[in-house]
Amino acid sequence: MPLLTPDLLTLDAPLTVKFLQLFLAEEVRKVGFQRLVLGLSGGIDSALAAYLAVGALGRENVRVVSMPYKLSSPDSLAHAQLVADDLGLEMLVEPITPMVDAYLATHADASKLRQGNLMARMRMVTLYDHSAAWNALVLGTSNKTELLLGYGTQHGDLASALNPLGDLYKTQVRQLSRHVGVPAAVIDKPPSADLWEGQSDEAELGFTYDEVDRLLVALVDERRSPAEVEALGFARPMIDQVLKRIRLNQFKRRTPLLPKISARTLDKDFHYLRDWGS
Amino acid sequence: MPLLTPDLLTLDAPLTVKFLQLFLAEEVRKVGFQRLVLGLSGGIDSALAAYLAVGALGRENVRVVSMPYKLSSPDSLAHAQLVADDLGLEMLVEPITPMVDAYLATHADASKLRQGNLMARMRMVTLYDHSAAWNALVLGTSNKTELLLGYGTQHGDLASALNPLGDLYKTQVRQLSRHVGVPAAVIDKPPSADLWEGQSDEAELGFTYDEVDRLLVALVDERRSPAEVEALGFARPMIDQVLKRIRLNQFKRRTPLLPKISARTLDKDFHYLRDWGS
Repeated sequence: MPLLTPDLLTLDAPLTVKFLQLFLAEEVRKVGFQRLVLGLSGGIDSALAAYLAVGALGRENVRVVSMPYKLSSPDSLAHAQLVADDLGLEMLVEPITPMVDAYLATHADASKLRQGNLMARMRMVTLYDHSAAWNALVLGTSNKTELLLGYGTQHGDLASALNPLGDLYKTQVRQLSRHVGVPAAVIDKPPSADLWEGQSDEAELGFTYDEVDRLLVALVDERRSPAEVEALGFARPMIDQVLKRIRLNQFKRRTPLLPKISARTLDKDFHYLRDWGS
Repeated sequence: MPLLTPDLLTLDAPLTVKFLQLFLAEEVRKVGFQRLVLGLSGGIDSALAAYLAVGALGRENVRVVSMPYKLSSPDSLAHAQLVADDLGLEMLVEPITPMVDAYLATHADASKLRQGNLMARMRMVTLYDHSAAWNALVLGTSNKTELLLGYGTQHGDLASALNPLGDLYKTQVRQLSRHVGVPAAVIDKPPSADLWEGQSDEAELGFTYDEVDRLLVALVDERRSPAEVEALGFARPMIDQVLKRIRLNQFKRRTPLLPKISARTLDKDFHYLRDWGS
């Protein structure tokens, strides 16, 4: 087993929760909004995001939406409802089945991967429409582990205006979720994208979140080399696989690539906040 | 009228086209791909993007898709077909009507703006699914004028892997389109998002692309102050409106905002290309 101390992964939970609530309140109001809308999947990430949003803006300014597909587990809806009830929020249920099936009707050959991306994007479409209708910002719910490994759909669940979990590893999401009181049934169930029955994140990735989070902290935050982390006890195949995933999925973490032609190019040297005042 | 010389807007067309083709060929292959897929709207931007893509990768590596809604102008489809025919490409036609109407069936109150965003996002969903099925990258077709003014849908037409037009103003798109031989019917028609009959970009924006491009060059590329451009002859209300649009639409040009918690945060100091080699 790796010798790395897990301490870098352990947060001061009360302080971090306070900070994240201030972050949300400030960043939402700074751009002239006061409301957030988010999808509740029934999983721990969106549950924590909902608790943070309610803590930051009050329950009257938070709307939660459950967006089941016909093959989604009934447990997912039940767990989402548990979270909404605990927070005193009314949960909207917006099935994505009609839209997804309208597309699949003429693309029956789509692989499971394509179907999963299709569902994630139909949820984005629904959530962004609700944000426009309710004058709210879309709250992101992807954690740092998923973002680094590219375990999410671009312009799907990765799409948001702001994301309080984006710098928290999965194990840190668990720690904060216990602190804010996310229901145990949500915290304790195996993480799953729920795209088909019995799907498991950890089985698909080939390692547990506990393991990979320790490796990611060493590679990304401590800037250790592959050789160094191998010396710390991580297996070389896992190191290589993780490095490859980080590299291959970089495209999901950036805006479209543009060629440089003019004096100031949007993704290169047009830095609005710095140059134009706030 | 503004006294600004239009020279900054005039490109060396043969050189710029060559550069953009090399940009596309290199950036597509660098990440292990050889194909591009794009939507043809019937307008000038996607037409130019298609000519550039074919010039860069050959017609066997470019797929064009027309994605009409039931209310789209028949002219749009005809103009897209004109472009495909001229390039010797087979054009796929993928109507978005079933998906859009599946959503609108339960959201009949959606405003025109929401409906327009819905359509743009359903086209993104379709195009990204084709990119996965055909192992291609999605080619963007938004020009710099639109990107600065926020005249486009986030996670809709603004979504792409790379965009050869992103540093070209609309008037420069016209110049290059004449150079590469885009059909005159496509170049000469009034720009329109074609979300409803008779829609016109310039009527909606309240100024012509010729005018606003000169103003944008002065503000963005030459970094002139509002007072300076006013002295050059631009009307103050137009200057204020353009500055406001650039500011308010900044969110469409960036990735989700993340709080800083760890030693390295994805949108702040995790710069993969610099730190990890290519």
